[in-house]
Parts: sequence; C-alpha cells; structure tokens
Amino acid sequence: MADIIIKNAYVLTMDPDKGDIESGVVVIEDGIITEVGSSTESTAEKIIDAREGVVMPGLVNTHCHAGMTLFRGYADDMPLKEWLEDHIWPAEAQAGDEDIYGGTLVACLEMIRSGTTAFADMYIHMDMVAQAVEESGMRAALSYGMLDFGDTEKADAELKKGTEFVREWNGKADGRITTMYGPHAPNTCSRDFLIRVKEQAVRDNAGIHIHVLETEAELDHMKENFGMCSIHFLKDIDFWGPDVLAAHCVWLSDGDIRILAEHKVNISHNVISNMKLASGIAPVAKLLSAGANVTLGTDGCASNNNLDMFEEMKTAALLQKVSTMDPTVLPASQVLEMATVNGAKALSINSGMLKEGYNADIIIVDMKQPHLSPAYDIASHMVYAANGKDVKTTIVNGKILMEDHEITCLDEQSILERMKRISKNLVSRINS
Amino acid sequence: MADIIIKNAYVLTMDPDKGDIESGVVVIEDGIITEVGSSTESTAEKIIDAREGVVMPGLVNTHCHAGMTLFRGYADDMPLKEWLEDHIWPAEAQAGDEDIYGGTLVACLEMIRSGTTAFADMYIHMDMVAQAVEESGMRAALSYGMLDFGDTEKADAELKKGTEFVREWNGKADGRITTMYGPHAPNTCSRDFLIRVKEQAVRDNAGIHIHVLETEAELDHMKENFGMCSIHFLKDIDFWGPDVLAAHCVWLSDGDIRILAEHKVNISHNVISNMKLASGIAPVAKLLSAGANVTLGTDGCASNNNLDMFEEMKTAALLQKVSTMDPTVLPASQVLEMATVNGAKALSINSGMLKEGYNADIIIVDMKQPHLSPAYDIASHMVYAANGKDVKTTIVNGKILMEDHEITCLDEQSILERMKRISKNLVSRINS
Ligand SMILES: [Zn+2]
Ligand SMILES: [Zn+2]
Repeated sequence: MADIIIKNAYVLTMDPDKGDIESGVVVIEDGIITEVGSSTESTAEKIIDAREGVVMPGLVNTHCHAGMTLFRGYADDMPLKEWLEDHIWPAEAQAGDEDIYGGTLVACLEMIRSGTTAFADMYIHMDMVAQAVEESGMRAALSYGMLDFGDTEKADAELKKGTEFVREWNGKADGRITTMYGPHAPNTCSRDFLIRVKEQAVRDNAGIHIHVLETEAELDHMKENFGMCSIHFLKDIDFWGPDVLAAHCVWLSDGDIRILAEHKVNISHNVISNMKLASGIAPVAKLLSAGANVTLGTDGCASNNNLDMFEEMKTAALLQKVSTMDPTVLPASQVLEMATVNGAKALSINSGMLKEGYNADIIIVDMKQPHLSPAYDIASHMVYAANGKDVKTTIVNGKILMEDHEITCLDEQSILERMKRISKNLVSRINS
Repeated sequence: MADIIIKNAYVLTMDPDKGDIESGVVVIEDGIITEVGSSTESTAEKIIDAREGVVMPGLVNTHCHAGMTLFRGYADDMPLKEWLEDHIWPAEAQAGDEDIYGGTLVACLEMIRSGTTAFADMYIHMDMVAQAVEESGMRAALSYGMLDFGDTEKADAELKKGTEFVREWNGKADGRITTMYGPHAPNTCSRDFLIRVKEQAVRDNAGIHIHVLETEAELDHMKENFGMCSIHFLKDIDFWGPDVLAAHCVWLSDGDIRILAEHKVNISHNVISNMKLASGIAPVAKLLSAGANVTLGTDGCASNNNLDMFEEMKTAALLQKVSTMDPTVLPASQVLEMATVNGAKALSINSGMLKEGYNADIIIVDMKQPHLSPAYDIASHMVYAANGKDVKTTIVNGKILMEDHEITCLDEQSILERMKRISKNLVSRINS
C-alpha cells in the first residue's frame, strides 16, 4: 500500500519523456514517487483529490540566506554600500543564534507556503539554520559562509568552521539536509583560501556555493588586483566544475559564459535582488544558449523582499525579454525548467520532476481562481499569472508540510509571534 | 450613525498632511470617508476589526483592457507582430458581446481580489464592459477604443460610437462609471481624426485615453510620416493637457518628457506589459523628476498575464533601479503614490487617499503572514513583499465587495464556470 495518492490533477511532470497529463495520478511511497500516470491500481491511506489543481514538482531556490528574513524590509532603496555597511552588517552583528533560528523558521514557513520544497543557503549561525530546516520538513543544501579577507588566521578558523558544519550536518534529517562549502566571494576570500576550500571540498565530496560577479565593483577589484575577472581567476585555480553553484554571475563577458558552460558550473540567477540593489542584468539568455545550467534563487529577504519563486520566475522571464528586446527568450516552459529540473541538478538532489524513483517533493496549485481563468496553457499560467499564494499543498520527501493552505509541520502562530518579539528586541539593541 | 467603521488597523493614509496611524480608525458614511484618526466617537452598524491588517486606499489601475482577460495566456513568448496579427486579432474577431462580458467579469473579480478599486479601460463591446463594471461594484473610467487608419468613413462611425458611449454611460452606477474618449494611438488614428476627437472631448468635458509610443515601431512610423515623434505630433495639434491619459510612453526623448510634464499629461506606466512584449523601458525616474503625473497600469491580461497591481508596483520599482543602475530611484513610498494618489488624479476621481471627504475606496491587507514578517516598514512591505492575494477586504464607494477573502458582490463560482465554457467555445470557433 502506498502512502499518498494524488488524483484528478493536471500533472505538470517536467519529465521531457512524459509531458503533461491532463487528468492524472501521482503515487508516493516512503518519500519517493512510485507512479505517475493517468490512473493507478494502487491504494493508499491518504488520497488527495486535486481536482481543479495543477500538480507539479516543488520549486528549488538555489540561492538564499534564510536567516536574513529577520531583516525583511529593514533597509531599502539605498546604495549597496550604505545598505550593507550602515544597515545590514550592523544588524547582523547584533543577531544571535535565537534570532537567526527564528528568521529561518519564518523563511521556511514562507517557502513552504509559496511552493518551494528545496533551497541552497549560505549564512552564519548555520547550526541554527540546519536545526530550523530539520524541524520544518524542508530539503536544503546548506553552507557556512566563509570570508578570510586575506587574513590567514581567520582563514584557518573559517575553514575549520566550514568543515565541521559540512561533516556534522551532511545527510541529516532523513537525508533532507546536505552540506556544501560556502566561500563568500572571490573579492572577500583570498586566492590561497579559495584553493584550500576547493581541495577540502573535493576531499569531502561536497559541493561549493559561492557569490560571483554580483557587482561591477567586484569586476573592477579583481581586474585591479589580479589582472583578470573572477571567472578567469577561478578557472586559473581549477575551481570550476559541476560541483560549484555560482550565485549572481551578472558581469560576464562572452568568454566568461563559455568557461561557465564548458565547466558545467551551476548558476543561480537572482533577478529580483540584482534589480533591487541595481547590481545589473545577468546575460541569462546567452548562458542558456551556451548550454549552462541556469537556475533561479531569491537571494536573502533583505534584498528581495520575499522568497516567492513564482515571482522570481516571472521577473526572470520579463527582464531577459526587455533587456534583449526579444520577447521569445526565456519562454514559460524554459523558466519552469530553471526553477525545477535545473535547480535540483544544481543541488545534486533527485527532485525537480514528477517521475518514478524521484523524491516526492511536490506542490499543488489551486487553479480555481479568477486570476488563473481561463486556462489555455498551464505552463504560461505558472510563470506569468500565478504567485506563491496559489500553492495550496506542499509535500517534501513524501511528507505533507501544508495541506489546503494549512501548515501541518510547524506551529505557524507561535513562530510569527516570536518573530515580533525578536525583531523588536533586535531594533532596540541596534539603536542602543 | 455611520455605515462602516474600520478599527484597530495600521492606517496607511497616503495623505501627506496626516501620514500613517499605527492603530487607527476609518469611518464611512454614504460612500464617503467621514473620519480618519486614532479613534472615533461615531458608531456604525458594521464594525470591521482590522487588527494585524493594513488599511490603505484601493489601488488604481490606469491602463487596462479588462475584456482581454478572455485571452489570458492564449499566446505568449512571441514577437509582437505575430502575437497581435496571428493570435490576438483573430481571437478578438471571434469574440462577441457575451465573451467580452464574461472576460470583464473575471477581470473585475481578479481586481477586487487583488485590491484594485478603480481602473481605466479602453476596449471594444464597451456596453458589455460597462454592464459588468456596474454589476461588480467597481469604479472605472471607460472608453471605446477607436481606430480609423485614415479611412474617413470609419472615422465618422468610430467617433459616433465613441460619443454615444461617452454620453450614455457617464455618471452611471451611482457615479462609479465615468467615460472618456479612446483614440487608440497616433499610428492607428489619422491626424484629422485625433483633432476631431480632441474637439469632441472638450465639448463633452470628457477625458481622453490613448496609447503613445509603446513601441519603437510607432516612433519610426511617426518620424517617417510626419517628421516628428508622437509627442511633438500631438503637441502640434494641441492634443496634450491634464485631461489626457497616455499609456506606455516608452520611447521618449528628454524633450518629450518636458512636454508631457509641462502639459500635465497623466502617464500610465505599464511595466510588465512593456517587459513581456519587449517593447522597451519607459524613463519613469526622469518623468517623475520632471514633475509628470506617472501612474501604473497592468495593460490587458494577454500581455501581463494578470491584473495584480502589487506586482506592477514591485516590478516598476525594480526595473527603474536596474535600468538606471541607481537603487534609490522609485522608493517604496513614491511607488505607492503612483498606484494610489497619482492614479486617482489621472482618472479625475476623488479617491487614492484615506481622507475626510474622499470616496470610500479602501482595502485591508492581511499582515499576519510569514512573507510579511517581521514588519519594520509598512510601505516597503506593500511594494516589495506583498502581492494581490494578501488583500482580504475590498470596499468601493462605501460598499464591501470582498470581506475576509469572500466575494460579496458577484457570483464568483458561476462566473468562473461560465468562463470555462466561453473559452472552450472561443477556441473551437477560432480553430474551425
Ligand atoms: Zn547572496
Ligand atoms: Zn493597452
């Protein structure tokens, strides 16, 4: 007997061999999808009737700082340097374990509510982040964000912390948590440090999550200090490979694009954050044409200011169209791939498709709503008309985390009440 | 005794003399706001406890083709010419009164659900549009979209239809419906026709709603045929004035911006449509600096593909920041003004602020949600974190159209069911 059968749904499989099923079933057993088809002989204790709903793979957010949810809307509409140095960093300095734990729980609630089933995170206080993820039921690839700024003592300490985190948490929470190394960026980590991190990651068979060329300032810094851009600099030290997840990748030359594609680097496109901070426009259409694995990420809430991957999909499509002046780039189906299949590949998880043997990371979107009516093309609606609040049911690893908009995995009210207290206390500490 | 008292709310008045009230009341009587303050002596039959909610003016969508909701997601990701000529126009040719009526009802449902209380519309089958608006309880400035393409017989017929519509519907539905003239665009209407329309509008004391410089193709066409751009061309025939609502305004020179500002033209910025169709990036920051009245509009659903003004606000802010590479342009408070105060001004309606004597066009946003937690800055959350589905209550002209997410003014289920039939029939007519 199976655990869950979802029936009567429009099944958007994202499986190129199968395509969509207009009225189908998805069968789940032991956290795994065991059947996807138009009907089933199986029975299950739990039957979900998804009539007037779309069943699809949960979305994968490939670049997040979940703990920063604590700073949602704390500082907006200002230059990057002022935002970071006068507001975000001082606030982060005041944030302790409990604050980051609380922020991450709110982030998980938001992601579950908006249809994200897995995310990649890089931040501080990572034990608290991992604990929150474990409790939430979500899937995540976590990394401790390391910076040495050329200080060798700090480099040792950071790598030690990063390594401890990788080893302690990898495979935890029934395998929902995996770990990565998180060197912050080529302009905040030294060359030697990046070399050591890469060697350590290879030894530990772990991936690497890094920010690359988010700003023109980084490009200028690298050219000035190393006579080359970050992409060539990292190529020089044999950093690139399919184990690397590079966030942002805004300031790329055509040569850089070829390097990233050739080395099968996973790229996290963070369109809303790049727009809000006026960082620039990543050449996503070119990256996709070159065959690169481009995925989508929200970045932290402080520069977005939410974690809604549906918004991220729509905005990514829109910005590429207008910036290339070509309305045919990033069509809806390709954007959906970025948010599901490509994202899962970047996190090395067996999710992102509704297919036999894949993780049961599944969402159901409520289609019986004015803004999704009429419905000629489901993929188009998912990208251009829907938003995260249209998700009514979220399943991760075969467990229902939200059903009919009710959170079943966490105590939502007490988490929101606690966040009120935490954020008030934080502000008074910052102002004192 | 008042009709409605909203209490215990965070009141985002948009009234520069008053500012926000952290816990306040709004009193409504006979469709008008009679009090806004921290408390009231009044009593009312209906008390709305808006604890953990934000009360603010309803949003004003200044450029819509509500009937086109019929074509939501019908054709995407293709060049403008192919989209329009091979898909939208043939589909429109098949659409009859009942189809446009059904499409407009779905549009009204969506707008009410997402916090839009008033909109400007230009389309065909306008009697049906007006009837749907009347039934919905919404406020709208409606116009019949006229094109003559230089054909004088067509010009006569179109102006006759436009005039009849203006006179028949102005002031209807308890004054919720006002009417405008809707010459389609400078490249689809002849010079003579535009002169006649302007004269007629002045005689009827009606406003004019027109598309201007949405595409570079229009700019090229005008320069080729008249040796000047649409802005100078319309200046030449004394078309511009505070009675004109000009949609899109993408392809503007600095001189054009001065002309629009000097003549106090109302501009509808349609950022999502402009991005999706790859029309270009309107110089909104420059227009605002020049003192122009810039407002926001969704355009029709076929090029958006929803009518969510919260999305429109966020996207407008984001695109200006990244296209000017300045994160300080279009701060949240200014974007809120565009969607409320400026929009109301463009429609010549006494809405857009919570202020004594203003229309009771009011929405309540549910703040008790993960993606709006924590809350340091309410204006920021409205623009950068919220979406239309966070609106829980919508009031227009003092009547509750939605309360706690329940539509009270229209039969939502039967409208959605009818749209299923309509859209199926439409597709089979097109394909036959
Ligand atoms: Zn980041
Ligand atoms: Zn239009």
